Amino acid sequence: MKLADIYMKFQSDIAVIEKELEATVQARHDVLKQASTHLLKAGGKRIRPVFVLLSAKFGHYDINVLKHAAVPLELIHMASLVHDDVIDDADLRRGKKTINSQWDNRVAMYTGDYIFAKAVETSTFFDNPEIHQILSNAIVEMSIGEIEQIRDQYNWEQNFRIYLRRIKRKTALLIAVSCELGALAAGADRHIQRQLSIFGYNVGMSFQITDDILDFVGTEKQLGKPAGGDLRQGNVTLPALYAMHHQPEVKSLIQDILGNEYPEHADVTPILDAINKSGGIEYSLSISDRYLQKAYHALESLPETEAKTYLLEIAAYIGERKF
Amino acid sequence: MKLADIYMKFQSDIAVIEKELEATVQARHDVLKQASTHLLKAGGKRIRPVFVLLSAKFGHYDINVLKHAAVPLELIHMASLVHDDVIDDADLRRGKKTINSQWDNRVAMYTGDYIFAKAVETSTFFDNPEIHQILSNAIVEMSIGEIEQIRDQYNWEQNFRIYLRRIKRKTALLIAVSCELGALAAGADRHIQRQLSIFGYNVGMSFQITDDILDFVGTEKQLGKPAGGDLRQGNVTLPALYAMHHQPEVKSLIQDILGNEYPEHADVTPILDAINKSGGIEYSLSISDRYLQKAYHALESLPETEAKTYLLEIAAYIGERKF
Repeated sequence: MKLADIYMKFQSDIAVIEKELEATVQARHDVLKQASTHLLKAGGKRIRPVFVLLSAKFGHYDINVLKHAAVPLELIHMASLVHDDVIDDADLRRGKKTINSQWDNRVAMYTGDYIFAKAVETSTFFDNPEIHQILSNAIVEMSIGEIEQIRDQYNWEQNFRIYLRRIKRKTALLIAVSCELGALAAGADRHIQRQLSIFGYNVGMSFQITDDILDFVGTEKQLGKPAGGDLRQGNVTLPALYAMHHQPEVKSLIQDILGNEYPEHADVTPILDAINKSGGIEYSLSISDRYLQKAYHALESLPETEAKTYLLEIAAYIGERKF
Repeated sequence: MKLADIYMKFQSDIAVIEKELEATVQARHDVLKQASTHLLKAGGKRIRPVFVLLSAKFGHYDINVLKHAAVPLELIHMASLVHDDVIDDADLRRGKKTINSQWDNRVAMYTGDYIFAKAVETSTFFDNPEIHQILSNAIVEMSIGEIEQIRDQYNWEQNFRIYLRRIKRKTALLIAVSCELGALAAGADRHIQRQLSIFGYNVGMSFQITDDILDFVGTEKQLGKPAGGDLRQGNVTLPALYAMHHQPEVKSLIQDILGNEYPEHADVTPILDAINKSGGIEYSLSISDRYLQKAYHALESLPETEAKTYLLEIAAYIGERKF
């Protein structure tokens, strides 16, 4: 069973969510409408809604209830991307600060706020305050994760623990919450909710580590941008951490080439070569796999259903993912 | 009775809210802690919490319940200020885009997100989904208001209705919600909630119009910045709208001097003179007063209590406010 088959299987329910997403961000005026439509059209794998749906299969599955859990999760993800874009925009136009580019950033910031608020508003469909707590806590943690990422940029002294905590907040938590809320909204029992949350957390960690590996080993064609972009931007990820930890000369190399701010014309090829030779990629793959095994393990006590098979399939896909 | 006396009267309860605000935004790491502490120290009149407390006097008043309504409202206000600062920062440093200034803006953006999310999280103290709906809707509307303000900048063709709708979203709504939630959290009856909401809306409209007038008639010393700042930034407010509507030559003057983007060295003195002579200030004062009268009227059917006297005092203060 391929990932595409799972999407096919849930096609009509994903369509319901897509429609609800559209209706939710629909605004009465042009700028917001354009920005939101653009975002929706950009698509994405809707992986969080899929986790909601699959997790809900362990309880009472009703798409007209579940959509109110899936939509906020996808909106929170979208809003965080919009706010990331504010930063990226600023980055790309460095030194060319026009009224026009400023206008874009402002709109992006408030569009992000709008989508966050819409996410919260949609979730008020549920009376259960636990759902609101889980969702608002996820936004709190994600914001902290973003600020941590800024704080830790170009800090070549950080340790593994800091990296893992950061990707937990940035990525793993929202996937854990997607699984948890799916089960909760469907009224699945506490044990199942808990196990699905653990599953989602571990899948999310594996997902992000894989992403971080790809940034080192991908070709420019595969990545759509030159390899080593994370490091160039000062984002220290697992392969680099491993290499610096085990080979002090790699750390010196990185410090020499990248220093402590965005290097406009630095050639990172020697760093990429050194990290590849350090064993950092293999190490990161093994850590990613360890999280994947924990994810599998979390589902062991759950009934052998089709939904469980699908969840394991998605986890496996994430582990093997090339791009 | 002066405004200060009302604050004195509620001193200990405001202190409880202040402490709760501090505990709520307290984060485990440095950047956020610094940013939040800085914000709290900057203070402000805590006018929204005061409206919550006074409105709650019409029901069962318990500060340990009410603080959970007052804190989110103040946090939402604070978060919106933080996001406004992102823009202001960018403005001040135009053409001097450094890594450092960029870092500040990013931190400010995610700190704002963090505070918004904390506001929502705090409000989950209440089981009542109506409270969450009202709060999240307020954030939605405020974001739309901000985007409208951006869209309408340097648009000299906008009409009164657009201006009024914008200040409703930007300012009046959150004050209306403060009054409404105070009453709701205290279990006051529906009629009282409704009237307090109407009161808050009208006070908020009057408050913003007064603010917009002050930007034209204040001295540089009183305002802490040169008069006419709103117009210079392309924010079209009531005095200017009136002048442009009644004297086409004022509109031409504004278009000639300000054009459609931020004028670095434009001298706005002739515009300020023309608006002052147009009767736009007197007209705006009369509109502000009309809202104030509606605010008074909204409380007529409410019992004659001390809290009602205080609310009327605050409204009157806002109407007479010089700075």
